[in-house]
Amino acid sequence: MRIARIAHPEGVAFVAVHGEEAAEIAEHPFGSPTFTGRKWPLADVRLLAPILPTKILGIGRNYAEHAKELGNEVPENPLMFFKPNTSVVGPNAEIKLPATSERVDFEGELAVVIGQPCRDVPAARAKSVILGYTIANDVTARDLQKSDGQWTRAKGYDSFCPLGPWIETEFDPSDVGIRTELDGELKQDGRTSLMLHDIGSLVEYVSSVMTLLPGDLILTGTPAGVGPMKAGQTVSVTVDGLGTLTNPVANR
Amino acid sequence: MRIARIAHPEGVAFVAVHGEEAAEIAEHPFGSPTFTGRKWPLADVRLLAPILPTKILGIGRNYAEHAKELGNEVPENPLMFFKPNTSVVGPNAEIKLPATSERVDFEGELAVVIGQPCRDVPAARAKSVILGYTIANDVTARDLQKSDGQWTRAKGYDSFCPLGPWIETEFDPSDVGIRTELDGELKQDGRTSLMLHDIGSLVEYVSSVMTLLPGDLILTGTPAGVGPMKAGQTVSVTVDGLGTLTNPVANR
Repeated sequence: MRIARIAHPEGVAFVAVHGEEAAEIAEHPFGSPTFTGRKWPLADVRLLAPILPTKILGIGRNYAEHAKELGNEVPENPLMFFKPNTSVVGPNAEIKLPATSERVDFEGELAVVIGQPCRDVPAARAKSVILGYTIANDVTARDLQKSDGQWTRAKGYDSFCPLGPWIETEFDPSDVGIRTELDGELKQDGRTSLMLHDIGSLVEYVSSVMTLLPGDLILTGTPAGVGPMKAGQTVSVTVDGLGTLTNPVANR
Repeated sequence: MRIARIAHPEGVAFVAVHGEEAAEIAEHPFGSPTFTGRKWPLADVRLLAPILPTKILGIGRNYAEHAKELGNEVPENPLMFFKPNTSVVGPNAEIKLPATSERVDFEGELAVVIGQPCRDVPAARAKSVILGYTIANDVTARDLQKSDGQWTRAKGYDSFCPLGPWIETEFDPSDVGIRTELDGELKQDGRTSLMLHDIGSLVEYVSSVMTLLPGDLILTGTPAGVGPMKAGQTVSVTVDGLGTLTNPVANR
């Protein structure tokens, strides 16, 4: 199932997307969602970020070639950081560049959406706690990331976590292409099979530290090819089988 | 007003604490709270963490003597990090020591509770966006903090953010005593006037990066004297005028 969140003429709803139609889900998409019967043509609604997570875990340096391009060693354990949920924006919403940074980079990523409260999940059981997968852009102020030490500010500005276009529940994430284009030019071109810590290992590691809640996200790291964005450009992240997340870039 | 969250025989509620009585607040304590008329003797209810924040900002090295005791320079800008809201526990709840760390420290802190959605708040207007103040223990796995680089894991375990006992809305935080005792022995003994970045500056800085939402917390940093806790011990953080937050320590 393809789960989206939309703005429709009367409000906001979770929907299941079937082709060009959006069917309203009652309440929330976790567990066994039921349908209200209301439907809209997809063209008549606006896609929002498919989920507003209680927390977003990022994983740094999870592709060897990306660690190398920034001059970093690959970490033994997954390198975790948080992005605040106030950084989330949906498809086609503007990424706003703050005046405090001279270099704000795109980082195209596959995102895991947690489906149920869980802790201490072994890698082999990770699939049972995952609702599905979406696409994220882990926008990063590269200069502030270096100068601050902690990555809170560099990765935490409002609009620094575009998400979407939807959550795909039937999806095999183990070896799919992930690409980022800036104004149509291919910048990142990786495969999820190149992750150093795979999705099962990430769920096991993160959930050994903290309880995960429905809707929480794990951003699984970015492949090589990161680079800066300027106001007026458009960035698109594609994960084969999921779709494309596109966002324009503007000054804040 | 003293705002608490309680477990009572029929459920959970926000209350205003007047002496030994807890008066139920309708819905939530933001804006101008109204009362349902239900009341309980304080002795008959259990205090929970007074708020479940959408985000918790910690501030590192905000007292010079504490930065020095860990061999660190004081940062020019506030050094921000996140704690997840799954790390929150209330008064008298156990701090659980994970097997992955050999040294888990207490860090007694004054916590600022945000009262309304806000961004780009100048220091001079900070007071207008603050609901009140409570006490936090920024529990930290010191060894993991050093080895991981990012502080996500070291400060993010479940139970690593005791909060309470309540939120005081009428409180001048500018120069009050803050003390931490371990099994009754005084370990930290500071004053909030020793903060390097005062509360107005912290609200200005954090809100220049990210939108703050009602209930969000800024932990304002810990004075000198941090140290490890062992299972079986009890840790208490006192802020003069606010009260005391006490938590037992146990193995996870």
